[in-house]
Amino acid sequence: MSSHLFGAELLSLTIAQCSGQPYDDFNTFYLHLNPMLIKGVSLLQSGLLLKNRDILIQGNRIIDIGRDLKDGEGAETIDGHGKLAIPGFINCHTHLAMTLLRGYADDMELMPWLKEKIWPLEARLTEDDIRWGVKLGCLELIRFGITCYNDMYYFPDVTAEATREMGLRAFISGVVFDMKPEMLRDVEPFIRRWKGDELIMPAVGPHAAYTCSEETLLKVKEIADRHDAMVHMHVSETREEVDGFLLTKGMSPVEYLDHLGLLNERLAAVHCVWLSEEDCYLLAERKANVVDCTVSNLKLTSGIAPLNTLMKAGVNVCLGTDGASSNNNLSLFEEMKVTAIVQKNAYHTPAAFSAEQIWQLATENAYRAARLNMGLRAGALADLALIDLRRPWLCPETNMVSHLVYSMAGGVDTTIVNGRVLMREGVIPGEAEILEKAQRRFERLTEQMG
Amino acid sequence: MSSHLFGAELLSLTIAQCSGQPYDDFNTFYLHLNPMLIKGVSLLQSGLLLKNRDILIQGNRIIDIGRDLKDGEGAETIDGHGKLAIPGFINCHTHLAMTLLRGYADDMELMPWLKEKIWPLEARLTEDDIRWGVKLGCLELIRFGITCYNDMYYFPDVTAEATREMGLRAFISGVVFDMKPEMLRDVEPFIRRWKGDELIMPAVGPHAAYTCSEETLLKVKEIADRHDAMVHMHVSETREEVDGFLLTKGMSPVEYLDHLGLLNERLAAVHCVWLSEEDCYLLAERKANVVDCTVSNLKLTSGIAPLNTLMKAGVNVCLGTDGASSNNNLSLFEEMKVTAIVQKNAYHTPAAFSAEQIWQLATENAYRAARLNMGLRAGALADLALIDLRRPWLCPETNMVSHLVYSMAGGVDTTIVNGRVLMREGVIPGEAEILEKAQRRFERLTEQMG
Repeated sequence: MSSHLFGAELLSLTIAQCSGQPYDDFNTFYLHLNPMLIKGVSLLQSGLLLKNRDILIQGNRIIDIGRDLKDGEGAETIDGHGKLAIPGFINCHTHLAMTLLRGYADDMELMPWLKEKIWPLEARLTEDDIRWGVKLGCLELIRFGITCYNDMYYFPDVTAEATREMGLRAFISGVVFDMKPEMLRDVEPFIRRWKGDELIMPAVGPHAAYTCSEETLLKVKEIADRHDAMVHMHVSETREEVDGFLLTKGMSPVEYLDHLGLLNERLAAVHCVWLSEEDCYLLAERKANVVDCTVSNLKLTSGIAPLNTLMKAGVNVCLGTDGASSNNNLSLFEEMKVTAIVQKNAYHTPAAFSAEQIWQLATENAYRAARLNMGLRAGALADLALIDLRRPWLCPETNMVSHLVYSMAGGVDTTIVNGRVLMREGVIPGEAEILEKAQRRFERLTEQMG
Repeated sequence: MSSHLFGAELLSLTIAQCSGQPYDDFNTFYLHLNPMLIKGVSLLQSGLLLKNRDILIQGNRIIDIGRDLKDGEGAETIDGHGKLAIPGFINCHTHLAMTLLRGYADDMELMPWLKEKIWPLEARLTEDDIRWGVKLGCLELIRFGITCYNDMYYFPDVTAEATREMGLRAFISGVVFDMKPEMLRDVEPFIRRWKGDELIMPAVGPHAAYTCSEETLLKVKEIADRHDAMVHMHVSETREEVDGFLLTKGMSPVEYLDHLGLLNERLAAVHCVWLSEEDCYLLAERKANVVDCTVSNLKLTSGIAPLNTLMKAGVNVCLGTDGASSNNNLSLFEEMKVTAIVQKNAYHTPAAFSAEQIWQLATENAYRAARLNMGLRAGALADLALIDLRRPWLCPETNMVSHLVYSMAGGVDTTIVNGRVLMREGVIPGEAEILEKAQRRFERLTEQMG
């Protein structure tokens, strides 16, 4: 950690580096900053809807939550009446720049889709395409109350810069695979450049065990261990992948990763559709995190992950949307609902997954995987969203968690990340320009395709 | 048809009665009414996005669609720039008053859910509960661009009145089952009261073949035939239901209904999850309509309907959301997406269901089942919605049908039914009062439950 940092900035670094320790002395640092007070808001506590509460934010932290809190001098006030405050979501698996390719190629078999459509376009992507694709994705995340995302794609530096400009928090890993050996070489310098940033947490993104050699994966592990960084990886997405491993290595991909020492609490193992019961217990034992992407898995017909079995085994399961070219949006509200109802049907009982359980996956489980102090509580990062309660799909006020999971259809109107308001009453400054630039980048990309 | 009706009113009756004939002389009737002109809107034609078109509406019909249309004197103008016009959806299966029970009981096994939660509440429902439950549901339909719905529930007269007050179009059938013999008795008077209404098309709603005797079903058929009315019925929803029929009658429910003469183009057979291939071809041959409710079927773990097989057989498949207590919203956008991705996965190919196909189910197939002249074309009923294109999930403008099906997450801002604007730029007059009344009715209902 550089020695020229002071006060609030130093604290943010400590938080960003996710040491997992409590930060009891945070308010000492922030007392000199202008506070922000959200007045009269509703919030959920243990499933109950509490009304007319205040949330006091100072710097990048929630300082207090209670009734009739006093705002300090120069405080910015947000009227929370008729609104529900929720803690920010983490979208635990994205390829955010691919938002630019939304709707470009749907309803195709996987290999023609990749070979004829996605790969040729990806080969032409420039830094500017990535920048505006990421910003377009950030607009969407902000509108869905997602304050942090976990990304894997090309040009990680550009993704990190664009994300910072938008004010979102993100884990960003450059993708690593053997076909492009320079990517492995670039990973550690990328991590060094961004390590300690207040919003960006650099990570390592080996694409999958079938696209990275054992040697590559061991180097990935070494780098990740050296920097205490997350390893973000596709694991056991398709049946073909798992059959291939069983045939050639006599091990499942999960067993193989364990054999290389990659299963630990810093691993985000994405998809995990085709797991044996042994795989589930092994992931639990090693405290690895599983990121489920039900919508993408259904759209690409990869199958349905055994979430109930994973959770019974004690695995920390989180949710991600995957990229917009296989989903095709970035909404965790939709992901929560589809995941819950698909799991219910797969396990033949409506009781298989409760709204409370799925809500936990999208919030607390994600915070645990990210090793971030998030949530609606004093001391946590000020990452939250306000939802307009005056929408028909949130009426009547019966079980608000159920509504957020099963009936939510819009109404996030304010999103705050790291104590900064990114959207207020539905308005994101600069949105029109981003939409226009993204449209132009897409047109340029596809024009080149002839 | 009563003899005291004139001009426009007479024409509307003709349309409402769905004779399926072309109405070439419609504009003769409407020339005396103030027109409405939507200027500069985008719309879809054969999957292509056409920009800067005008839509001229007169009375309850679309008169013309083209470039630079002239508005007549006293015309009301709607600015359509930056907006996409879509034809109104029909939600082909609802229990709209149950919107009042949204979130009241989730994640429970079917029988405890019905016995401990839903039935005791339903036993206490009053006309006022129905009225505000229906109006709450209508708010949601309007916000999802749904201009017509197909309902089955108690108090059909109250449902019809509340729907008319809200300005929506609906097929409304009182539910009929043997446990409450008065319901069968009430059906024909209900039909007579509403037959010929401009917005309400009364129908017969035998709950299911396992809750109605053969005698009841034959009477239902007789009434429906006499009034050329729709028969709206749950069919083959669960495996237990089908197994029961095979065991006791040696026929599937579909074969049984055919045996009673109920399979025809006026039947809306809802769910149809458990069908044999023979059932599919029989439904096709008889031109019966199948209404799929994927979200509800998953949430209640009924299973996945064989839609690809049904469509291959040539059946007219439509979409419905079911009631809000088993979904828990009324969005056909969500229903389209979940249906498409679940069908892809079930049939093991991403090509199994295209965005264009599923769009067809929610629009043209529904219009065929309803025997209504709907769609964005001259001569059709003026039932349409405008969507704000300046939303990130609709960017880039690649394949707008794909966006509407796979990434849509809000932005319907204007909804027009029967030539009348029900929502303009996101505002529905009276919405706040309806939300408040619905909340009070729900509180009263559950208070009584002790």
